[in-house]
Amino acid sequence: MQSNINFDESALAQRLMNHRREFHRYPEAAWREFFTTSRIASHLQQMGYSLCFDEEIIKRDSVMGRDADLVAKAQERAISWGADLQFLAQMNGMTGVGAILDTGRPGPVVALRFDIDAVEVMESQDDSHRPRFLGFASLAPGVAHACGHDAHAAIGLGIAELLAQEQANLTGKVKILFQPAEEGCRAGKAIAESGWLDDVDYFFAAHMGMNVPSGTLVCDPQHFLCSSKFDLHFSGKPAHAGIEPNAGQNALAAACTSVTQMLAIPRHRDGMTRINVGQMHAGDGRNVIPANAVLMGETRGENRELNSFMYQQVERIAKASADMHGVSVDICPQGEAIGLANDPELVALLESIGEESGFTQIFREKDFGASEDAGYLVDRVQASGGKAIYCLVGSDLTAGHHNGDFDIDESRMLPAVKLLFNAVKATQAKYAGQEIIYS
Amino acid sequence: MQSNINFDESALAQRLMNHRREFHRYPEAAWREFFTTSRIASHLQQMGYSLCFDEEIIKRDSVMGRDADLVAKAQERAISWGADLQFLAQMNGMTGVGAILDTGRPGPVVALRFDIDAVEVMESQDDSHRPRFLGFASLAPGVAHACGHDAHAAIGLGIAELLAQEQANLTGKVKILFQPAEEGCRAGKAIAESGWLDDVDYFFAAHMGMNVPSGTLVCDPQHFLCSSKFDLHFSGKPAHAGIEPNAGQNALAAACTSVTQMLAIPRHRDGMTRINVGQMHAGDGRNVIPANAVLMGETRGENRELNSFMYQQVERIAKASADMHGVSVDICPQGEAIGLANDPELVALLESIGEESGFTQIFREKDFGASEDAGYLVDRVQASGGKAIYCLVGSDLTAGHHNGDFDIDESRMLPAVKLLFNAVKATQAKYAGQEIIYS
Amino acid sequence: MQSNINFDESALAQRLMNHRREFHRYPEAAWREFFTTSRIASHLQQMGYSLCFDEEIIKRDSVMGRDADLVAKAQERAISWGADLQFLAQMNGMTGVGAILDTGRPGPVVALRFDIDAVEVMESQDDSHRPRFLGFASLAPGVAHACGHDAHAAIGLGIAELLAQEQANLTGKVKILFQPAEEGCRAGKAIAESGWLDDVDYFFAAHMGMNVPSGTLVCDPQHFLCSSKFDLHFSGKPAHAGIEPNAGQNALAAACTSVTQMLAIPRHRDGMTRINVGQMHAGDGRNVIPANAVLMGETRGENRELNSFMYQQVERIAKASADMHGVSVDICPQGEAIGLANDPELVALLESIGEESGFTQIFREKDFGASEDAGYLVDRVQASGGKAIYCLVGSDLTAGHHNGDFDIDESRMLPAVKLLFNAVKATQAKYAGQEIIYS
Amino acid sequence: MQSNINFDESALAQRLMNHRREFHRYPEAAWREFFTTSRIASHLQQMGYSLCFDEEIIKRDSVMGRDADLVAKAQERAISWGADLQFLAQMNGMTGVGAILDTGRPGPVVALRFDIDAVEVMESQDDSHRPRFLGFASLAPGVAHACGHDAHAAIGLGIAELLAQEQANLTGKVKILFQPAEEGCRAGKAIAESGWLDDVDYFFAAHMGMNVPSGTLVCDPQHFLCSSKFDLHFSGKPAHAGIEPNAGQNALAAACTSVTQMLAIPRHRDGMTRINVGQMHAGDGRNVIPANAVLMGETRGENRELNSFMYQQVERIAKASADMHGVSVDICPQGEAIGLANDPELVALLESIGEESGFTQIFREKDFGASEDAGYLVDRVQASGGKAIYCLVGSDLTAGHHNGDFDIDESRMLPAVKLLFNAVKATQAKYAGQEIIYS
Repeated sequence: MQSNINFDESALAQRLMNHRREFHRYPEAAWREFFTTSRIASHLQQMGYSLCFDEEIIKRDSVMGRDADLVAKAQERAISWGADLQFLAQMNGMTGVGAILDTGRPGPVVALRFDIDAVEVMESQDDSHRPRFLGFASLAPGVAHACGHDAHAAIGLGIAELLAQEQANLTGKVKILFQPAEEGCRAGKAIAESGWLDDVDYFFAAHMGMNVPSGTLVCDPQHFLCSSKFDLHFSGKPAHAGIEPNAGQNALAAACTSVTQMLAIPRHRDGMTRINVGQMHAGDGRNVIPANAVLMGETRGENRELNSFMYQQVERIAKASADMHGVSVDICPQGEAIGLANDPELVALLESIGEESGFTQIFREKDFGASEDAGYLVDRVQASGGKAIYCLVGSDLTAGHHNGDFDIDESRMLPAVKLLFNAVKATQAKYAGQEIIYS
Repeated sequence: MQSNINFDESALAQRLMNHRREFHRYPEAAWREFFTTSRIASHLQQMGYSLCFDEEIIKRDSVMGRDADLVAKAQERAISWGADLQFLAQMNGMTGVGAILDTGRPGPVVALRFDIDAVEVMESQDDSHRPRFLGFASLAPGVAHACGHDAHAAIGLGIAELLAQEQANLTGKVKILFQPAEEGCRAGKAIAESGWLDDVDYFFAAHMGMNVPSGTLVCDPQHFLCSSKFDLHFSGKPAHAGIEPNAGQNALAAACTSVTQMLAIPRHRDGMTRINVGQMHAGDGRNVIPANAVLMGETRGENRELNSFMYQQVERIAKASADMHGVSVDICPQGEAIGLANDPELVALLESIGEESGFTQIFREKDFGASEDAGYLVDRVQASGGKAIYCLVGSDLTAGHHNGDFDIDESRMLPAVKLLFNAVKATQAKYAGQEIIYS
Repeated sequence: MQSNINFDESALAQRLMNHRREFHRYPEAAWREFFTTSRIASHLQQMGYSLCFDEEIIKRDSVMGRDADLVAKAQERAISWGADLQFLAQMNGMTGVGAILDTGRPGPVVALRFDIDAVEVMESQDDSHRPRFLGFASLAPGVAHACGHDAHAAIGLGIAELLAQEQANLTGKVKILFQPAEEGCRAGKAIAESGWLDDVDYFFAAHMGMNVPSGTLVCDPQHFLCSSKFDLHFSGKPAHAGIEPNAGQNALAAACTSVTQMLAIPRHRDGMTRINVGQMHAGDGRNVIPANAVLMGETRGENRELNSFMYQQVERIAKASADMHGVSVDICPQGEAIGLANDPELVALLESIGEESGFTQIFREKDFGASEDAGYLVDRVQASGGKAIYCLVGSDLTAGHHNGDFDIDESRMLPAVKLLFNAVKATQAKYAGQEIIYS
Repeated sequence: MQSNINFDESALAQRLMNHRREFHRYPEAAWREFFTTSRIASHLQQMGYSLCFDEEIIKRDSVMGRDADLVAKAQERAISWGADLQFLAQMNGMTGVGAILDTGRPGPVVALRFDIDAVEVMESQDDSHRPRFLGFASLAPGVAHACGHDAHAAIGLGIAELLAQEQANLTGKVKILFQPAEEGCRAGKAIAESGWLDDVDYFFAAHMGMNVPSGTLVCDPQHFLCSSKFDLHFSGKPAHAGIEPNAGQNALAAACTSVTQMLAIPRHRDGMTRINVGQMHAGDGRNVIPANAVLMGETRGENRELNSFMYQQVERIAKASADMHGVSVDICPQGEAIGLANDPELVALLESIGEESGFTQIFREKDFGASEDAGYLVDRVQASGGKAIYCLVGSDLTAGHHNGDFDIDESRMLPAVKLLFNAVKATQAKYAGQEIIYS
């Protein structure tokens, strides 16, 4: 099988760079990607895609880690940045967009997924930081595209453009998902449960970087961790700490007890587990028994059972810590990642098209060692009878993911576009009965 | 008012010393005073008292801190020491004896109380320790009369002898209680609830020493602390600590959590509180998740409400600590002290007869600062319409109470006997309508 | 002795109210009283007082609990509210002002002290809250005069006005201190150590409310608690909580350990102690081992030894908690209160002039039960050979101190002014050899 | 290669059974194997071996987990059981014996190691428990051969007998080590450091059971955990818990703090770690601040670095917990296991001789998942230029290791003897230049 598309690669590379840099300037954190979504939707509409928003792609009941106040402020800022009011209306407060290209011809339903949110990290102020000296640094202090999702969104627009242009030579249907709120694994479940992917035959997703160097493709990353993100809200009763210390119900003490105890959840026979409490904020004054405390934590496990063991312990400890101090506790899920297992058929497919797509090294396995919201989408597609894959597109980095100095190798976006285009073509060929020869 | 009894004081003093030294040689800890009770009962029977044992003086359901195994071993040892088998049979496993002298003449019911148990302390092996070089040191390693109850028991026999001898000049009824298990406040409640003291008009109790020097009488000690003694038994599930740490339910961890948290019970606006965990024993091996843990603790408070506040926190913490680690907990009360408040009338009475009884200094108040099982008895008498008092009989000490070097000034037993005898006479005179002039 | 001043009481009462309401509208928390100081200074200058700022009244090295960033912001806000730039320049970042009225005639140096800072409390939004429906509610969300220092500042201006007006009839020197940062006991030590009060013969301070009803004067409040305010800053090392949890140094865990352990500092034989951690803020992300944590706490004790015992434990625990988790800790003192003991001569003086000043009930003692920054000032004056007093001026309150619903009885400001005026006159009379007859 | 020895297998099997049952009747825990050593020495002497005791085989400075009091009592009991006084004298308090068979002919030095201690476990009292109904149950309550070392010792005597009998056909030297104190990994280090094994060319050790069924040989078990066993002794200062709680230094509180914190040592990126505190004993009374606490714990890790990480944390936490409560702590190493890695050449050798030795299934790898004192010996031999192996000899068990119902399949001792005999012969053949063909 050969991809036979003709296009001006260097012009496309230039457009990818422009897209990426615009997204980089206007970074928006999870569930707040109003400007980003608006810009993407505008491009997609021009290319002729039909667009899906809000409950078409997101089951609201399953949304996690979305703060209404922060969302409202983000919406206002997006407007001040020039977001399209009509698209904002369609979003109805829910970011992200699904695009559909229906050829009308028989063929497979192929889905491509790109995550678009930034992370809450202060971008480097160092003059040697490329986005800074090239003039596309983050305009939002404390938020930055330090994970490469700006590139993912750009790649999504690139492949959308290519597919639209090649539409006459395509069959079936292509669905392109620009996913919000991947950070913290907050949206995956709600998108999966919306059912938007239920008719999908082939699902492709990719991540740039991840310690894979420029030029390398990893087709079947291993060890996607299951994870549960949670907030604990302890509520007690204030009292003057000097005058009647016995009258208070100490929420801070309960929170501290829970932290110490959570860190002591036993190790598990069956493999790797993790627990962290990353933040705590408690109390309002110095001389008042603190009546409120919130902490933000996460569990992880090598598989669902292990993560589930950890999370059950968290629930027990939260409850017991509250009881211990006579306070109440709300356990608020904030995100969740289940594992992710690629379909061997698609692994072989990617291995066979890597080279022609511009990769110089093709590896099968590499340890992923982190969590990915795409697990929910992969799981849903597989449960509905489709096949799915998540791969790693190498990119030299200037610093680790989520670091303020992080920057990607922009030249690696083009091979990603070509890889996905070739993948779409290959699945259509297969559907048409053509044998795919995995080189 | 003048006591007009004639007796050979020096002969009585000698007998008091003999009694005290015998009790000192054969010390028996709480609920294990079989030899001691047997010896006392034997003397009382000879003097003509009618005796009450077991459920006549003790409500079995209210007994605290009594270990059946230790009791059984103590009974065997008492037999080996020569305890009277007939009295043992009457005791039926419950130590202590109540003696009644009924004159048959109208008059008040006066009760006198003496506690008889030793403490679990290793007596000094120093050759300069008086019981040692005079040859009446403890024969039971690890148990000693280091609180002066040997003297109390001797004083009880002394006053019993004097009353029996003076019987013709007495009226009403005298009840003498030789109380077991004062240490740890384990018997008071059960004796009170037996009802044996319900007909009492006047109740007297005394303690030797307590930082009061020889020659001094303190008539109205203050601040008897309320206290609850408790054991916590945590039960979990063992597991190999290397092979499957997740499978255990860690009782030791739960116990440790409860200790840390109990020590952090908030201070109270209304006054002094205390918490202590004095012992912990947990686990059976090094490489097994420990499935059992027992700890021994106590709360205290300046009044019942404060002690109750502390004990409720203990209960909550015990429960929450167990829940935290998925284990179960039994909270086992082991003793309890309520406060103690003397009747002013009897305070004045003691003040008026101190000097003639041989005391050179009479004080009204002194801080007690500890707990006393007599509180239950005083409370019961007062609730039944009687009057009660607990006083301190000074005695120079060689070391503090519960110290292995502790020894009393034996010469101070005689004034105590005289004080109580004069007190009995005074109450009878009052009952007869004679005015008691408080000098 | 009779005060013979003639003035229009109702006009003064009206001015006191106006002053107080203006201060109430523009509340500024500790070390941020730029607008407040500017307004006070402006009035004092007009009355003819010579003014002292910055290092004249404050020893900078002894300042506690002052945050440069918050101070800078407060200064900007004060400017936006219309603070006088010239006074701001004189303050040089340090709020508060000392005013001197020097009669040039021989006589005593009398000092009057008024604290002027607000507390960080959200004022009631309830329409029935008087400052709200009368239109002088706080313009600074989260800050309110919920402790009555607005009234204190107004009383200070009232007495300043009266003294200036009566200047011809006065002798010696009067120093009026408008003290910043009383809340948290942050400024007292620095002011005392500036030496500004070292020549003072008589020192007077008063607090409104404190559970004393309108019309009542308490001349000698008891039990001013010693207290130490502190922040603990824990610094560790971040690490990805999933990828290498072992590489982090967990500052949040150290902070939680220290909280649990501080709450468990043993009770003390010698009397009342307190410990509280009122706030904690730690960590930046959910999935990062938290590398920073700050907590804000305080100890108290019935006397200096007890507070010192508590604070030494805090230091030990902070250090050990840091060592436990391999992090570092900075222990930052944020405030300190030592006790306060009035001079009996001044107690008697106030008792003698209460009635003529407009109080209907004069009490000698009442439990204070809290801490007061004035302790440092009283202590300094007494150490320098002067006499000092701190009294309570009754005022019915709508809610407790530091409560958002707190409001005072404005009509009680006038008696306070008269009391202080009479006190100044009385000390001058005494100095002149006139006997003061304590009625 | 074929073993060509002729002997009466069933007579040997009978003797193995007799030996094993005698050892089973007289179980002795670590460092207390006086009777056991005496019996073994007696047999070995009769066979003509020269024997090594005490410092010949044990470096006293490196001994861990040996309690002098328990050793003294065990020695007395061994005498009462009939231990040989002459051997006791040679042992000089140190159990275990090394036996040497020197052929005088050139050849390799081959060492065989057998551990001989019992575990502190109460043997099943169930009548169906084989040692009980066959009459060889433990005579020492609370101690039992519940790990199979009775069989190991018997196998050691069996192979000793066979080698002595075949001496004329052997070359070089054979050293047989009957090792004390394997449980808790207490002796291995001291034996290794004695240097007794430094001239060894080939070292063989085996364990029966370990979840390997009868008939199966596992030649190269994997994942021997590194482990450190430790006791922590906390020493504080007692004080009356009611009268002056502030005066105590609470050792129990320090111990509890250390437990909670040790359980919270972070998981490690590089693999499996473990921590356990299996026992705690603290305090003497209920109403005394506990002045002493001892706890017994262990760390484990998949490799030396991981175990070392854990143990360093334990040291830090122990120290910080002591500092926290103002007490002192002694950290007492009680045992240590380093990893264990077999030499491939010997793995292949065992694979090649398993079948002829009577095994029906030969496996290469199996997870060991526990710790083995033999690691020190293997390590020493390898460091000195020799080769070493530790294998598993299958045996159906009636219950898991260290369980009171544990019993082995006695018929599996004979194949173990044959395996070792064949191994010795094979190494000698190899030394002689004969090729060993690994089938």
